[in-house]
Amino acid sequence: MAQRYVRVKTPQGQIYYGLLQLNRTVAVLDAPPWLGGQPIDLTLAAETYRLLAPCAPSKIVGVGRNYAAHAAEMGTDIPKEPLIFLKPPTTITADRQAIFYPKQCRRLDYEGELAVVIGDRIRHCTAEQALGKIWGYTIANDVTARDLQRKDGQWTRAKGFDSFCPLGPWIVRELSAGAKIQTFLNDDPQPKQSAAIDTAIFSPAAIVAFISEIMSLSPGDVILTGTPEGIGPMQDGDRVRVEIEGIGSLENHVVTEN
Amino acid sequence: MAQRYVRVKTPQGQIYYGLLQLNRTVAVLDAPPWLGGQPIDLTLAAETYRLLAPCAPSKIVGVGRNYAAHAAEMGTDIPKEPLIFLKPPTTITADRQAIFYPKQCRRLDYEGELAVVIGDRIRHCTAEQALGKIWGYTIANDVTARDLQRKDGQWTRAKGFDSFCPLGPWIVRELSAGAKIQTFLNDDPQPKQSAAIDTAIFSPAAIVAFISEIMSLSPGDVILTGTPEGIGPMQDGDRVRVEIEGIGSLENHVVTEN
Repeated sequence: MAQRYVRVKTPQGQIYYGLLQLNRTVAVLDAPPWLGGQPIDLTLAAETYRLLAPCAPSKIVGVGRNYAAHAAEMGTDIPKEPLIFLKPPTTITADRQAIFYPKQCRRLDYEGELAVVIGDRIRHCTAEQALGKIWGYTIANDVTARDLQRKDGQWTRAKGFDSFCPLGPWIVRELSAGAKIQTFLNDDPQPKQSAAIDTAIFSPAAIVAFISEIMSLSPGDVILTGTPEGIGPMQDGDRVRVEIEGIGSLENHVVTEN
Repeated sequence: MAQRYVRVKTPQGQIYYGLLQLNRTVAVLDAPPWLGGQPIDLTLAAETYRLLAPCAPSKIVGVGRNYAAHAAEMGTDIPKEPLIFLKPPTTITADRQAIFYPKQCRRLDYEGELAVVIGDRIRHCTAEQALGKIWGYTIANDVTARDLQRKDGQWTRAKGFDSFCPLGPWIVRELSAGAKIQTFLNDDPQPKQSAAIDTAIFSPAAIVAFISEIMSLSPGDVILTGTPEGIGPMQDGDRVRVEIEGIGSLENHVVTEN
């Protein structure tokens, strides 16, 4: 099994980066692993922490329409270059935490996605250089208020509500060739979304290179690499699970906002 | 003269929040003022620091089309609610620093704007509550690659390049009633943009309340409240100056990116 890099919080409120062991203990690191964090003499037992999202990015950059069949289902052309958007860091939530259904939203969609975690400061790099600066991979759900996305034209509100970026549960260093991404709703064994990640129009490295021509990326920043076809709505009480082969499974439930 | 709250960097690389005195010395605070920072026994002489942007936000939320005449010049309707977008924190630059003209841009526009600095954690608040949580006001230039804005539809790339959010030079606590915002290009004494801020469609408090229904705001976050009519292009070597009565003047120059 690949090494799983996590971020955890203790009941005392301390936040650590660490390595998740097979017996669910966490070997604590002295810094984020992309900043060279090394194991210290501290292991957390399984009952003494909860998982946070595995990083705390200064920015989350998303890419729209990166799978041809999803562009088609949205009634849009296949883009000639990545179409980027931002989600605020306050959208991030962890595995098993709630996605809050906003009062002003009438249609709330899941969008299962591969997320890339940046390992270095990046500006003006080629795709080849970018590949060397991708620290690892995790799973994201780019939750979107579809009605507000259509209404506003700009996607910021629709994709920007608190809890609209479930991320995790952990980061792995390598992505398997041909790895599939699938999204499941509730107990339906049939996936709502299912695609090989390498069928995306732009590769993770190409996306990172494109973004690096616009803005500086920092260690721990997150890039969402787009969702395949099959997006659809969630209701209060639904459970949504995004799986990527070789990484794991990210599950969240929908709760109507008070 | 109103108190001027600044953020400065010393030649040794230390960053401080402080109060700018009339003789250009800075009385250093032990924390950001919106977190209760108090003066310590340290004053920086005028030659021993340079001004940074006056805060380091976790997010910058902008509002489009908030002045009716600007909406008209862009050929768009007057919005019924604020239309929000995000600029990444890496867009921020200080007074007197360069705006970098990106290679991929063919038309680079200034957009002078009033910026609001948030003083408290905010979520789900009314406009009245929002007013109490606005810590202060400063000046921004929401620099925009107009050609890329039209090409992409989404505004993230067009408004997201490094250096595309000059901010400062300082923060004041109060905004004068009827204060005017004006933008000047080079030595032209005629302003390119000139409007009373209170002619905006949505007030700063109404904008903050609207955003707070979407995302949590944190102390030090920045809200750009929209640009009045008169936006226009800048060329390599141009100097652009945004002035707001009762705050001051934010000046930057344009340099072609290497």
